[in-house]
Amino acid sequence: MTVGELGEFALIRVLQGLLPASGPEVLVGIGDDVAVLEGGRQDGLVWLATCDVQVEGSHFLREAVAPEDLGRKVLAVNLSDIASAGGTPRFALVSLGLPRDLEAAFVEGLYRGLGQEAARFGVQVVGGNVSRVPQGLFIDLFLIGEAPREEVLLRSGARPGDRILVTGTLGDAAAGVALLVGPSGRSPAGTRVPQEPFPVPQDYLLRATGRRDRPEPRVREGRVIGASRLATAMIDVSDGLAGDLGHLLQCSGVGGRIEASRLPVAPENRLLARATTGDEWHFALHGGEDYELLFTCPPEAAGLLADRVREATGTPVTDIGEVLEPGTPGGLLLPDGRLVEFGGGWDHFG
Amino acid sequence: MTVGELGEFALIRVLQGLLPASGPEVLVGIGDDVAVLEGGRQDGLVWLATCDVQVEGSHFLREAVAPEDLGRKVLAVNLSDIASAGGTPRFALVSLGLPRDLEAAFVEGLYRGLGQEAARFGVQVVGGNVSRVPQGLFIDLFLIGEAPREEVLLRSGARPGDRILVTGTLGDAAAGVALLVGPSGRSPAGTRVPQEPFPVPQDYLLRATGRRDRPEPRVREGRVIGASRLATAMIDVSDGLAGDLGHLLQCSGVGGRIEASRLPVAPENRLLARATTGDEWHFALHGGEDYELLFTCPPEAAGLLADRVREATGTPVTDIGEVLEPGTPGGLLLPDGRLVEFGGGWDHFG
Repeated sequence: MTVGELGEFALIRVLQGLLPASGPEVLVGIGDDVAVLEGGRQDGLVWLATCDVQVEGSHFLREAVAPEDLGRKVLAVNLSDIASAGGTPRFALVSLGLPRDLEAAFVEGLYRGLGQEAARFGVQVVGGNVSRVPQGLFIDLFLIGEAPREEVLLRSGARPGDRILVTGTLGDAAAGVALLVGPSGRSPAGTRVPQEPFPVPQDYLLRATGRRDRPEPRVREGRVIGASRLATAMIDVSDGLAGDLGHLLQCSGVGGRIEASRLPVAPENRLLARATTGDEWHFALHGGEDYELLFTCPPEAAGLLADRVREATGTPVTDIGEVLEPGTPGGLLLPDGRLVEFGGGWDHFG
Repeated sequence: MTVGELGEFALIRVLQGLLPASGPEVLVGIGDDVAVLEGGRQDGLVWLATCDVQVEGSHFLREAVAPEDLGRKVLAVNLSDIASAGGTPRFALVSLGLPRDLEAAFVEGLYRGLGQEAARFGVQVVGGNVSRVPQGLFIDLFLIGEAPREEVLLRSGARPGDRILVTGTLGDAAAGVALLVGPSGRSPAGTRVPQEPFPVPQDYLLRATGRRDRPEPRVREGRVIGASRLATAMIDVSDGLAGDLGHLLQCSGVGGRIEASRLPVAPENRLLARATTGDEWHFALHGGEDYELLFTCPPEAAGLLADRVREATGTPVTDIGEVLEPGTPGGLLLPDGRLVEFGGGWDHFG
């Protein structure tokens, strides 16, 4: 059986079973957005650790990406994982796999973007590794953050009755990906691509490509949510709202229902999604790369928490649904009253 | 200019200049085997962090490697970096880049080997990432260790008059690499390959392939050397003795001379090196992947330190030369009295 046939999530479960059990200093191991480790630099602080990679041909096309954007993005996607635990990012190591014939200027641009993003978020790049690859550039980044132990948010804390909230807007990066290849090409997301002119204004197209190429990790928002001690669970929306909400609900052992009419999705996004996929909610639910924060909290805290994030960061927060008792039928409630199941999350081998 | 034309070490210097300066909690940043970070879990402890990758087609051939060996090795090469600082390895994260058509059994074998090596050295694998790659498997590993601050050894502490010592034996893994492709093939190291039968006994060939496929990181030896507080500098020999000694001497701002007659090289290794490269010292000086520890200490401590390592671990330690004042002509002193310059270290784009 190949890894493609087995699938990403089944593979991870198999691999986890082949490793020795963790000791008590590993508060959270494989299976959440970050590992949580005892041994912070002050009493009450824990370390958070995560890694994520950008691979040529899977995550980006070398001829279509600005190297500065790529450098920013490889840090941003890791920052988003630290943010999803409510943490503060601290130290990064970078592992580069470079083909011999790659222009050095490309790597310099990549590091310029990485350095700027690191400076913005107070991250120190403390080491790394350079290796030659026969073909297919990759940039792998390992990020260490920290948080007060009592403020770390996991996927697993949601309780029936909690509200489900999300920062910012959904589906824009996926719209940007659908635009990337143009009307004649095959979209990487497997969507049909509309004939030009696209049925949405130019300024939305620019916003969508910006969200695709320059994702903004919600680090400050994550810290506000963690520090509030009002939230019960959190995850970042990297693989599509449906899949990531599915992970959060599953890890928490609960059900959930969100309402389409509440989703923070631009009207232009729904138009473009309908034109390219036949489903106006497709980008918002299954698109991926939003890097918004999805979190839960008791109903009486939802308004206060949303206000607090907006006041501290300017980022809107939307209440999109509720956590249900385990076994209760959930999913997406459409405006016409139909309840649609979420379907699976993004499988990187699917 | 391509990265191949610029070269690995010049590229790293350029990239380092594009990053923001580090703060005081970064005791050692880019440029040593490990990063050294303030904030250990107890007073007096510091964190060590490193990463290293195994890339298909650069570090291994999928059809020639046992997946268990590959899993062991990707951890072992990182363990060797922690060992070279005198540290104790603690936590690992693994970033896998997998082609869709890879057999799941290969990844399982890889994790079985990784898990066994992790258990042997008390390392906990706490997280990771799985990504799809269009082609060319890679396994990238990030390793965190710790050490008492006063016992951390860097490349930069060697002083004129110090002795230069090395654990174990040199050149065996390189001999194994030369054997890998057989008489008809082109050796990955660019060496000529002798006609069979090889001019050395079968048991040496087995030992050489073992050193190539199952390197033994000198973690216990590194801890003994660090804890002794007798050594002044240390590095692991991963890119060949000449290159890594060059790094240590350069970082310390000193010169150095080693004596060929003192090098711990098997006679069979010299025979095979002469037959395949024309130079009996080639594998020992330039071969790479020895994963021995190369360290310096005051002359009066050399015998004691060598004894202590041997008694605690069974691993022999050999005194191979001395550290010289900066500017003094150094290199390899041959038995006939000639002094040969080391030449450069292994450049991964060379």
